Amino acid sequence: MLVVMEHEATPELVAKVCEEIKKLGLTAHPMPGAQRTAIGVTGNKSRVDSDRIATLTGVQEIIHVTRPYKLVSREFYPENTVVNVGGVLVGGNEFTVMAGPCSVESEDQCFAIAEYVVKAGAKIFRGGAFKPRTSPYSFQGLGEKGLEILAKVRDKFGLKIITEAVDTETIEIVAQYTDIVQIGARNMQNFSLLRKAGRLKTPIMLKRGQAATLDEFLMAAEYIMSEGNHNVILCERGVRTFADHSRNTLDLSAVPFIKRNSHLPIITDPSHGTGRREIVIPMARASIAAGADGLIVEVHHQPEKALSDGAQSLTPIMLEQLMNEMRRLAPVVDRTCS
Amino acid sequence: MLVVMEHEATPELVAKVCEEIKKLGLTAHPMPGAQRTAIGVTGNKSRVDSDRIATLTGVQEIIHVTRPYKLVSREFYPENTVVNVGGVLVGGNEFTVMAGPCSVESEDQCFAIAEYVVKAGAKIFRGGAFKPRTSPYSFQGLGEKGLEILAKVRDKFGLKIITEAVDTETIEIVAQYTDIVQIGARNMQNFSLLRKAGRLKTPIMLKRGQAATLDEFLMAAEYIMSEGNHNVILCERGVRTFADHSRNTLDLSAVPFIKRNSHLPIITDPSHGTGRREIVIPMARASIAAGADGLIVEVHHQPEKALSDGAQSLTPIMLEQLMNEMRRLAPVVDRTCS
Amino acid sequence: MLVVMEHEATPELVAKVCEEIKKLGLTAHPMPGAQRTAIGVTGNKSRVDSDRIATLTGVQEIIHVTRPYKLVSREFYPENTVVNVGGVLVGGNEFTVMAGPCSVESEDQCFAIAEYVVKAGAKIFRGGAFKPRTSPYSFQGLGEKGLEILAKVRDKFGLKIITEAVDTETIEIVAQYTDIVQIGARNMQNFSLLRKAGRLKTPIMLKRGQAATLDEFLMAAEYIMSEGNHNVILCERGVRTFADHSRNTLDLSAVPFIKRNSHLPIITDPSHGTGRREIVIPMARASIAAGADGLIVEVHHQPEKALSDGAQSLTPIMLEQLMNEMRRLAPVVDRTCS
Amino acid sequence: MLVVMEHEATPELVAKVCEEIKKLGLTAHPMPGAQRTAIGVTGNKSRVDSDRIATLTGVQEIIHVTRPYKLVSREFYPENTVVNVGGVLVGGNEFTVMAGPCSVESEDQCFAIAEYVVKAGAKIFRGGAFKPRTSPYSFQGLGEKGLEILAKVRDKFGLKIITEAVDTETIEIVAQYTDIVQIGARNMQNFSLLRKAGRLKTPIMLKRGQAATLDEFLMAAEYIMSEGNHNVILCERGVRTFADHSRNTLDLSAVPFIKRNSHLPIITDPSHGTGRREIVIPMARASIAAGADGLIVEVHHQPEKALSDGAQSLTPIMLEQLMNEMRRLAPVVDRTCS
Repeated sequence: MLVVMEHEATPELVAKVCEEIKKLGLTAHPMPGAQRTAIGVTGNKSRVDSDRIATLTGVQEIIHVTRPYKLVSREFYPENTVVNVGGVLVGGNEFTVMAGPCSVESEDQCFAIAEYVVKAGAKIFRGGAFKPRTSPYSFQGLGEKGLEILAKVRDKFGLKIITEAVDTETIEIVAQYTDIVQIGARNMQNFSLLRKAGRLKTPIMLKRGQAATLDEFLMAAEYIMSEGNHNVILCERGVRTFADHSRNTLDLSAVPFIKRNSHLPIITDPSHGTGRREIVIPMARASIAAGADGLIVEVHHQPEKALSDGAQSLTPIMLEQLMNEMRRLAPVVDRTCS
Repeated sequence: MLVVMEHEATPELVAKVCEEIKKLGLTAHPMPGAQRTAIGVTGNKSRVDSDRIATLTGVQEIIHVTRPYKLVSREFYPENTVVNVGGVLVGGNEFTVMAGPCSVESEDQCFAIAEYVVKAGAKIFRGGAFKPRTSPYSFQGLGEKGLEILAKVRDKFGLKIITEAVDTETIEIVAQYTDIVQIGARNMQNFSLLRKAGRLKTPIMLKRGQAATLDEFLMAAEYIMSEGNHNVILCERGVRTFADHSRNTLDLSAVPFIKRNSHLPIITDPSHGTGRREIVIPMARASIAAGADGLIVEVHHQPEKALSDGAQSLTPIMLEQLMNEMRRLAPVVDRTCS
Repeated sequence: MLVVMEHEATPELVAKVCEEIKKLGLTAHPMPGAQRTAIGVTGNKSRVDSDRIATLTGVQEIIHVTRPYKLVSREFYPENTVVNVGGVLVGGNEFTVMAGPCSVESEDQCFAIAEYVVKAGAKIFRGGAFKPRTSPYSFQGLGEKGLEILAKVRDKFGLKIITEAVDTETIEIVAQYTDIVQIGARNMQNFSLLRKAGRLKTPIMLKRGQAATLDEFLMAAEYIMSEGNHNVILCERGVRTFADHSRNTLDLSAVPFIKRNSHLPIITDPSHGTGRREIVIPMARASIAAGADGLIVEVHHQPEKALSDGAQSLTPIMLEQLMNEMRRLAPVVDRTCS
Repeated sequence: MLVVMEHEATPELVAKVCEEIKKLGLTAHPMPGAQRTAIGVTGNKSRVDSDRIATLTGVQEIIHVTRPYKLVSREFYPENTVVNVGGVLVGGNEFTVMAGPCSVESEDQCFAIAEYVVKAGAKIFRGGAFKPRTSPYSFQGLGEKGLEILAKVRDKFGLKIITEAVDTETIEIVAQYTDIVQIGARNMQNFSLLRKAGRLKTPIMLKRGQAATLDEFLMAAEYIMSEGNHNVILCERGVRTFADHSRNTLDLSAVPFIKRNSHLPIITDPSHGTGRREIVIPMARASIAAGADGLIVEVHHQPEKALSDGAQSLTPIMLEQLMNEMRRLAPVVDRTCS
């Protein structure tokens, strides 16, 4: 940690700050400069809660050097974490595709789409039973009935299932039905939900919040891991910017950054990340090329009848094309995609 | 709603889209243009769930005209809503200041600060008992013990209390102790929490999410109101931008925009909105001048010992100065501040 | 400056970085920490060009402590700079309002508007003769003919004139006609234009770029000052964010931040900053309350016939209302507005 | 164009707006809705300058349907434009890599780097002779002497040259020495410079501004084309967001969007787009996979001695690795990279 003093801070003020640092059991290294004095702080085992020092008279700014995360960091665990989803491995050599409708609408709909998903070769079926919607008047999902349909998809098609849990009341029942519990972008800092996810054994897929820095994203994963669940998959799904040609801005540089700084697998969601069906495939290609461990995409056999997010859903033919392109790209980036 | 067709869409495709619109019970008004055809849609009583149409072949874009919100809108209820917080009115002529520490740390701390708050003339005491923190290793608040301390502050000092509820498990107990339940920025789209807040009778203060548009912000309030609780206070607390001189960018233009489009009271949080103590007072002045109904600010009698957010807490002397400035400004903007 | 080493950097790498720092004539203070070593750097008189060090093996990050700006900084010059615009002082006790049409369209139009501007009590007339427009097919301004009209406005109405210079070819002729040369947001980092502005004697008003940090904004002013022209007025005119209820997000916290860190006057542009006529007045009130030294606003006597930006132009009646509100607010924030 | 009327607009106001629309030679289609009336406008050959209508009483909002650009649009010219850079084709089947130092520092430096560039197989050499720098005290480039060095690189190594022109004064001399004139991000809306670039015959590479929408980006290219120079290459180089793990956020979705909407070639700049050497290669892979026509990257043989942007420069070995990866990827995305 570095404590930057104000230009006009007297030597007495500097001394007082050094004293306070010592009181916290740390060592202070004052460095007088031409414009102002900075004080290096060492001796901390983890990130110092700097609020006390930040408010001392004469302190202009605190600069943190130590990264705040532990369990999620590659420094802590240098190997890649491979999450085992009932036999389907995420984060290993194989590139994993999760596909399915935005919302579970009916058994017929899910079966029809699952058939295409199997045919295209994806291994994990996505579908929302509990839907977080901006408007209270929009379709909110089928709830537990949707979970039952997803379980039937698993039985009938041999696909693994991922579906979202939106609150602490229902996360346990969601976990009973599904192979991966998704925590959505809006809930990335719903810490009660994260903690409860951390006490499950089911793998968790955590989506990046729309305005979350990567430090915050990794700290949210840290919440889950700190409760004991180490099976966490990260998902970049686009952030909010001024850009208006896509619904969100898919921040692909997050992929290599996270691969360097964390051992957790990271996939991308080009459907939500762009909001435009016609850009999904190019961004899927970009994702595997950037080093992502997989994709989650929306597909609908009749997108014009979808109850939500139809405009960003791939058609079955597009899903097949996407899978074929992933299979062509995988070996070139030293992965497999079966 | 306006359906914009692609440049190369054939008359047949346009006709098909018109048919689908009719199937939804609406009227289609095709308008052939030089570059492309647009189709006006009328007959809807509320915002159309446009996903079905968005995915029809030949459709380029859907443009909504009808605003998605109802109960929160000024069109629905033209008068200002005045929320009665145990006798303290928010949203009326009086400008309301809520002040107190970021976190409830101890009875001594709260009593010491409450004394300053009373002295300065603020009517509502803020303090976090349940704290949402980016890191699982940071101080998370005193929990119910903190709520008990806040109740003592109310009894002893006659201040009304506002404190945050962070999850559905604890919101009811929070509501028992407090006069206003705060829903924080990170939970603005925690819809289960919003619904539960909507089933309380206690007034709710809802903070704008860090990347929320004003439509989304108002829709979050709509969730609360649609469950029956009409006592909602909105709070602008800064959004995330590239700007790096302040922790967030306090978007003051939200205040007049919301005053025009909604009947709900709106206050600002210049402490979180800037993250810098030395900018809080000017931004408080700007808030009342822009038309805000009040402020929520952090104050600490010993900011250098605060367990969280010390750097943005006002000192007691600064709080007094702030209140004096509000009192000077209030009559000039046709308000009172007693 | 602080050099943060990578977690796995060896003592040899640390030593090598320290050596390089010494070669630059600076002093290195290595501080071994639990997770990694940081190296404090002192001895620099100004901000170190750190690129050489940033690229040494083992270096993870460089953190600058010294602010990059000099002439614009309050540390350099502690008094407020007051810019004398032909007798109208900007940056002193008086709050200055500049008003006029977006574009100079004709003598008749300017005279009609100038009459309202004089009547409302503003002292400086704005109007674009050279207009930077997103589309090459939009109206680009009357050019020198527009400057002549502005000169007539000065003669006839006794108003000072501000108008924009868009390139190095025309800035000198613009300077001959006007009392303040405006550098627009799009040109904030047009360094050739800034340097040329710095060699003029005419006061310059520099607008903040749409994505400029305040450091970059102040450095752009530093370009002008470093060429000898110290008569610089800064203008906050909104930045680009995800928010969609206003054209830009007027970042009012820039005002108190700049007042603390620079001696230059700063005004705001609520017309461009919001893009919505109905929000201009509240944001004007917020600006004076936040500590701004003045305003620049668009006004048009027939906004429905304006050739550009009509939707954000005040009507003459609104301008009068705005001036009256400024006069009421000024004494409360210890200013005058005559 | 769609004119949305306010909720409370009377039929008389609607009629008046329709009349004004007719006066502009257009056809008005009023569509009364449940909440408000919208008026469709047809008959326009290009985008209507809507300011006059936007300001009529009762008008709430104007929504444009017609895209503002013409010459740059794929609707106008359906084939891919292939820019011929002295025999090196950009925008065709071949994936083009431009590489070289940020700044031209000396003949020795350029020759050393050029040798690596040739060896790696890139065809175009980049290097800044005129450098736009945030600080007036930073190294500003060698100017014309730098151009002479670049010309020698061309003669000696057979590489084509790209270098930036920063102002209208020097763009002609830059054009004399170089094969592609670069217009930098800061100058994307320096319209005088764009127009002058449009009157050259030399190919122009236009970088996207840090806060530019794609509409604005394409309109800037329209400025160049409207003056007669159709040899325009677009370059996505990252936009400004709240994300702090990279210098900018490389918005790769711009690539497929622009490929669909424009016939111009688009390349990416992962060096500036990320600011971090270790992320450049993954983002280069992502770029070719997303459909980009090429790359521009920084490389330095001694990055620790670079006079600018050393931290984002590749080493010669990394450049070779990058080129090898492009060669492996190219055939998989139906391109060549020789």
